Amino acid sequence: MKNALSALGRRTTPPPISWMMKTALSHPKLISLAAGFTDNATLPVEISRKLLNEILRDGKIGQPALQYGVTAGEKNLRELTAQHLQKLDGAPASNKNYSAERVVISGGSQQLLYITLEALCDEGDIILVEDPTYFVFLSILQSRGIQARGVKLERDGINLENLEKVLTRLKKSGELRRVKALYLVSYFQNPTGATTSRAKKLAALKLLKKFESAAGHPLYLLEDAAYRELSFGRSTDVPTALTLPGAAQRVIYTGTYSKPYGPGARVGFGILPEPLLTTVLRIKGNHDFGTANLLQQLLARAIATGFYSQHVAKIQKRYDQKARVMKAALAEYFPASVEIWESGGGLYFWARLPRGLSAGVKSKVFKAALKNDVLYVPGELCYGEDPSRRKPDNEMRLSFGSASEENIREGIKRLGKVLQQFLK
Amino acid sequence: MKNALSALGRRTTPPPISWMMKTALSHPKLISLAAGFTDNATLPVEISRKLLNEILRDGKIGQPALQYGVTAGEKNLRELTAQHLQKLDGAPASNKNYSAERVVISGGSQQLLYITLEALCDEGDIILVEDPTYFVFLSILQSRGIQARGVKLERDGINLENLEKVLTRLKKSGELRRVKALYLVSYFQNPTGATTSRAKKLAALKLLKKFESAAGHPLYLLEDAAYRELSFGRSTDVPTALTLPGAAQRVIYTGTYSKPYGPGARVGFGILPEPLLTTVLRIKGNHDFGTANLLQQLLARAIATGFYSQHVAKIQKRYDQKARVMKAALAEYFPASVEIWESGGGLYFWARLPRGLSAGVKSKVFKAALKNDVLYVPGELCYGEDPSRRKPDNEMRLSFGSASEENIREGIKRLGKVLQQFLK
Repeated sequence: MKNALSALGRRTTPPPISWMMKTALSHPKLISLAAGFTDNATLPVEISRKLLNEILRDGKIGQPALQYGVTAGEKNLRELTAQHLQKLDGAPASNKNYSAERVVISGGSQQLLYITLEALCDEGDIILVEDPTYFVFLSILQSRGIQARGVKLERDGINLENLEKVLTRLKKSGELRRVKALYLVSYFQNPTGATTSRAKKLAALKLLKKFESAAGHPLYLLEDAAYRELSFGRSTDVPTALTLPGAAQRVIYTGTYSKPYGPGARVGFGILPEPLLTTVLRIKGNHDFGTANLLQQLLARAIATGFYSQHVAKIQKRYDQKARVMKAALAEYFPASVEIWESGGGLYFWARLPRGLSAGVKSKVFKAALKNDVLYVPGELCYGEDPSRRKPDNEMRLSFGSASEENIREGIKRLGKVLQQFLK
Repeated sequence: MKNALSALGRRTTPPPISWMMKTALSHPKLISLAAGFTDNATLPVEISRKLLNEILRDGKIGQPALQYGVTAGEKNLRELTAQHLQKLDGAPASNKNYSAERVVISGGSQQLLYITLEALCDEGDIILVEDPTYFVFLSILQSRGIQARGVKLERDGINLENLEKVLTRLKKSGELRRVKALYLVSYFQNPTGATTSRAKKLAALKLLKKFESAAGHPLYLLEDAAYRELSFGRSTDVPTALTLPGAAQRVIYTGTYSKPYGPGARVGFGILPEPLLTTVLRIKGNHDFGTANLLQQLLARAIATGFYSQHVAKIQKRYDQKARVMKAALAEYFPASVEIWESGGGLYFWARLPRGLSAGVKSKVFKAALKNDVLYVPGELCYGEDPSRRKPDNEMRLSFGSASEENIREGIKRLGKVLQQFLK
């Protein structure tokens, strides 16, 4: 007798994260530079306690915080979110792209990415992704039978010539009608730390528009800004694609309060064009009728009282400091032949070994690192299944998010020693 | 140019709940006996405040409550949930069906129902449902292109002869290989209030087993026990299907803390057989990497401290009282020719008008009720799209969950007057 699983069920592979977590558990002395967790010490435990006390003491919002709400999310949080984004983008208040009616509150931005793909893609459809990109997004594609096509990534975003080449090739092969969107992790990208310039967002949106008539339907720019607020504050913030001409019709924007505030109070958000907005809300209704109100009220109050922005300023300094520690350790311990991508924010450094030296899951480097009790994310996990190119296997994602400063230094030291052996 | 939506996206219809909410908003004096909301006055606002204070003051769990966790859910909550279910079922501690390793914590049981259907069903597959059943479950089926086949419902659960007839017919038509599960809302059912007896659960599981070789794969019993703890305490609790022989391989059980505790702190759970458990966890990893820890810690502490069971005892009395008010009002104001199903728990009465008098969405009765500022859920919304039978349209779901006692009485009075007019 066969099992009763659906094609989706049979297709869905274990997440890479699960074997990494198991590995961590079986190596009790392991220093993990792999986890995308945020810094434990700076989690707003005391602020949250204070805010929740206020909420649950408040005769007006205490009960509603424990009751069902509407699928799109609490009105006050949607309004605050629209204003927050408008402010970050320096857009005029008259810009209707930042309207509470266009905002969806979700269980982290992850849930919104998932539902957006449900609304957009059939099995066999194509999403263009950065090469490399966020690996859990690739897991969703794989699970849902959606094809990934990679576009080369540079330090300021995708390579535009390559994007045009990929689109042209898909047009020639008759596959353009399967393409639905270009997915960009636009700020301090996971895994490389790269930030897409506004010029590249603009050019990418224009290119997509150019190929629309051949596709026969809109080609969306899906901007995932999950790391946006984890800037080190050293550079000016790049505006989002929501500021571009035509954005109201073609830009899907997702963001989150989880990473900057606290993943345990998981609240994300998005701004979507029609007819996607309506469709995503209907599907979200089937998922959960809306994100838990108590968490929404917590974030709304954190934002409204100013605690949220105070907290963000605090963690920006903290991550800046941790990034400096990792940078110094990399300079001290890593062989000079390893190329390092430094970021202006986020949780990651990206390291590229000289060609020919693999850092992949089954590589000698990875095994030697584990033997020396240090774990990283092999870069190859961040490349989609695109038959038109080989996956590079000589890269590593190094996270300074959850490790202590001491462990960052020690972890990079151990990894540096391993690399010195192989690069002698 | 076409839109870019997926087949799922195009198929997903607006939830019936959305026009009901709009209707409510446009009738400010409306008494809603439609909403499945829980009672506002009894929401555990003060308990939650106390527990959250303890959690966020605790050096050990304060930070983890705001951090990421594991996809399956926090270990302590999974253990407490397994014990809780085992206790409710009166099962021996040695029964491995109630093991923390089999428990998944989810964003309400709704999310778990959704993911279970993703794991089990391809487009065109069939789920057997009670006639009538929970309408948001029907929305998921419709959205995902899954067919519903209705099985007649009696006051103690489905009609077994009808179940066998439906299975036999599907076998003859060659459609049995598309059947994946029988879905039962087994306690104080939404919408009818019916509770499935253990004998019927046992017989249904046996019948499913009998047809498995013809189906070529397992046929699951999907037991949705969302209302289980909203008993009025007048009758003995029926054990779940987890107590049946073979349950470990064939019973999928979903439950929730949302309805008894607080929907705004949405936490549900389930117990699943392999290979579904593994598959559901992988898919949930793609949805959200696990339910928000802060809510999980809140529920875990509520259960561990005994507050949860104290609270459940309190709301059971409260709903019992509200149900008595509705019962008395129904006796006083409804024409004797209307058949009333009374329940031993939950949030609903089920009213069946004499044949020929429609209570459907477009009926004169529904319009007259609205004109008199009272709203109910037309029973026809609770029937799946099963081409093999006509949907009855002479039924109503009447909820006493969120309305005040005064409004319950007044709402039933208004509705009674409307019905008296049509049944003169």
